[in-house]
Amino acid sequence: MKKQQIGVIGLAVMGKNLALNIESRGYSVAVYNRSPEKTKDFMANEGKGKDFVGAYSIEEFVNALERPRKILLMVKAGAATDATIEQLKPYLEKGDILIDGGNTLYKDTMRRNKELDETGIHFIGTGVSGGEEGALKGPSLMPGGQREAYDLVAPIFEAIAAKAEGDPCVTYIGPNGAGHFVKMVHNGIEYGDMQLISEAYFILKNVLGMDAKELHEVFSEWNDGELNSYLIEITADIFTKMDEKTGKPLVDVILDKAGQKGTGKWTSQNALDLGVPLPLITESVFARFISAIKEERVKASKELTGPNVHFDGDRAELIEAVRKALYMSKICSYAQGFAQMRAASNEYEWNLDYGKIAMIWRGGCIIRAQFLQKIKEAYDRNSELENLLLDPYFKEIAISYQSALRKAVSLAVANGIPVPAFSSAIHYYDSYRSENLPANLIQAQRDYFGAHTYERKDQEGVFHTKWF
Amino acid sequence: MKKQQIGVIGLAVMGKNLALNIESRGYSVAVYNRSPEKTKDFMANEGKGKDFVGAYSIEEFVNALERPRKILLMVKAGAATDATIEQLKPYLEKGDILIDGGNTLYKDTMRRNKELDETGIHFIGTGVSGGEEGALKGPSLMPGGQREAYDLVAPIFEAIAAKAEGDPCVTYIGPNGAGHFVKMVHNGIEYGDMQLISEAYFILKNVLGMDAKELHEVFSEWNDGELNSYLIEITADIFTKMDEKTGKPLVDVILDKAGQKGTGKWTSQNALDLGVPLPLITESVFARFISAIKEERVKASKELTGPNVHFDGDRAELIEAVRKALYMSKICSYAQGFAQMRAASNEYEWNLDYGKIAMIWRGGCIIRAQFLQKIKEAYDRNSELENLLLDPYFKEIAISYQSALRKAVSLAVANGIPVPAFSSAIHYYDSYRSENLPANLIQAQRDYFGAHTYERKDQEGVFHTKWF
Repeated sequence: MKKQQIGVIGLAVMGKNLALNIESRGYSVAVYNRSPEKTKDFMANEGKGKDFVGAYSIEEFVNALERPRKILLMVKAGAATDATIEQLKPYLEKGDILIDGGNTLYKDTMRRNKELDETGIHFIGTGVSGGEEGALKGPSLMPGGQREAYDLVAPIFEAIAAKAEGDPCVTYIGPNGAGHFVKMVHNGIEYGDMQLISEAYFILKNVLGMDAKELHEVFSEWNDGELNSYLIEITADIFTKMDEKTGKPLVDVILDKAGQKGTGKWTSQNALDLGVPLPLITESVFARFISAIKEERVKASKELTGPNVHFDGDRAELIEAVRKALYMSKICSYAQGFAQMRAASNEYEWNLDYGKIAMIWRGGCIIRAQFLQKIKEAYDRNSELENLLLDPYFKEIAISYQSALRKAVSLAVANGIPVPAFSSAIHYYDSYRSENLPANLIQAQRDYFGAHTYERKDQEGVFHTKWF
Repeated sequence: MKKQQIGVIGLAVMGKNLALNIESRGYSVAVYNRSPEKTKDFMANEGKGKDFVGAYSIEEFVNALERPRKILLMVKAGAATDATIEQLKPYLEKGDILIDGGNTLYKDTMRRNKELDETGIHFIGTGVSGGEEGALKGPSLMPGGQREAYDLVAPIFEAIAAKAEGDPCVTYIGPNGAGHFVKMVHNGIEYGDMQLISEAYFILKNVLGMDAKELHEVFSEWNDGELNSYLIEITADIFTKMDEKTGKPLVDVILDKAGQKGTGKWTSQNALDLGVPLPLITESVFARFISAIKEERVKASKELTGPNVHFDGDRAELIEAVRKALYMSKICSYAQGFAQMRAASNEYEWNLDYGKIAMIWRGGCIIRAQFLQKIKEAYDRNSELENLLLDPYFKEIAISYQSALRKAVSLAVANGIPVPAFSSAIHYYDSYRSENLPANLIQAQRDYFGAHTYERKDQEGVFHTKWF
């Protein structure tokens, strides 16, 4: 009997779309879902007439696969992943390859990779970016696990991945949890990008009183320049969509309570564990939290006053300042995210290739942008770069755009417009470039009240003072 | 044989000092330490001639105690706590009370409380604030656990606690992990307070060029007003301390790399889990991280330029603006911390009494301040207050001081001086008082690229648009 080349477990939308994507590239696929109705339904509809085999038990599913078996798990991250692995284990053999394409915390992937490795089963945890449409037409893929296992699935991964200038948006990221880690940072960066765009929008809307049509024009124009990216492009699009019910621009009737699936916070929590400053993404997560307490804000808006909006400067100049502020803030955000990956790579010995990571984000995923090419070039120039801001290209932009960012932040602060992410960008820049920070006072306080000791600027050693 | 009223396990500095404090209030104490030398040493020195019994095995220790036994664990938080509990268990009886005074994560306390409760053993997790000196002379105590167990140790806790205007700085916080949770938030608030003071210092030093003597005068004066607090007081002190080696003010020769014991990050990580905005404390944690990469900053300072410092305004006006900025930022920080406690209280059904919590922080601990009385009064006025900024007193300060905070932030941004915590305070204020935030655009983006749906401003329901 003919065996299928790969199997997919879990036929929710992401699993289904990835299965269809794989089959469409000429691979034969076995599918299995916990509730058999979904499998039946899939075989009778989307899968009909294609090279799919529907399996109705784990045993049947595993037996339908050629060896070494390649099994893509697309189940709910967490306990369901562990449960599925336990069900599979009795039927698997040494050399088989399990691939977790769920939104899994990298530490879980590290654990599973280690446990399965002891039984000779390979385990790849892969980030899959690009949502439902990406899964179907071409996602950005971030696989981590045993290198030799990845090499066996690489042809499939490369076939289904998005293409950016012809290159598949996939590369081997590193051992064990490296792939899911990089996907986590990607998600955090996505939070930051979206918050920055929303702050730019808020300044233009509130200070210049721009309507949706004008905003569309500004974002369209921005998309033609160095800010060119998927998120800027869809933002420009969004402003053109009218609400059928009210005739107003749809964006104006959407409630300002931002949802989240909780993965942005992982990036921040991890940065706190690694000791890496990640203020911009973290402020973006907090901004979503504040947006969520709409009822409290409405109440507070009646109690807590602020300044009236006032602007008598040049409109075109301000628009350009906001554009520069957005680009410089974005650079600071990516500088933070890449520094976080660097810290993790050192901590876990992943040997991450930052340039390649930037390259596979150029297609398929939400943060795809022209700008990623610049990051790749920065790491080509110096693979050991400590911080993107130290690269000649980014350094030059930062030096030249900082005054625009300072202007945008000051204007927003003066006018009572919250721009926590813009603001955190300039403070990050100013902190990072400060030879001296006021932490000497903090060290003095800590030594004063807790005998925590301190170091000195002028000599080595650890010191304690009896202050009084 | 006479039994001792309470036992202390662990004779490192905190355990030793608490044992001495307890004995000094007229209680008889048994002590035990894993390495017997420490016990011997303690009995021969600090404990000599006092009502201590030194025990050299767990069995001997437990047998030395009257029933129900009251045992204070002062061991390293984490695995050592679990190991000690396991060693004790065979000798304990129903109704005995274990008290963990370590720097324990509240979730561990919740787990231990639950596990021990099933065997009839009470478990109290208590925050102990005030460092070594507080432990010896009077700490602020934040006990959580079974109420009936706390009532049995309350006389001892009240005897050893710091006193603020005659009131002991201890109150029953709530069930299971509530005490350690509140201590965690306390620590986060401490990070915020210290960062805010350091930013005020940095503006005065860099914009006005103030030397240590002038800084001492400013902070001394501030300590006589509404900022009156331990941290402002010791800051004023710190500026008077001269370095013997160089003859310079000591603060100027201390290296600006802030240390930390990692507890501040717990507060931020928990806020991220609870969905509570906690930007100020989190920026303070990140500021310590940036301070720690001194070598990178020195390198960056030679690459990344910024504006020259320029100020031609009125010096006295600026000093007053910074003072107001500091007070308003402090209010925003406590508003965030208390909102976090409120969210946890709801989540875990702790029924926290925020006014009482403010009261027990008035003495013994690092964040002790006159201002805590104002928080107590706010919760007296409204025990269900959603946010401190909505209380009449704090609201009035915020409305009146916001322009000073805006001025301080803008001045710092224009002059290239990083003030991430000040800045996050004004953005928190402006976000919180915004009826509308730009999260509608974020929701539009999420619906556009991921079909995540959105709500509308004008009607109930969940909507999805096919954008293009």
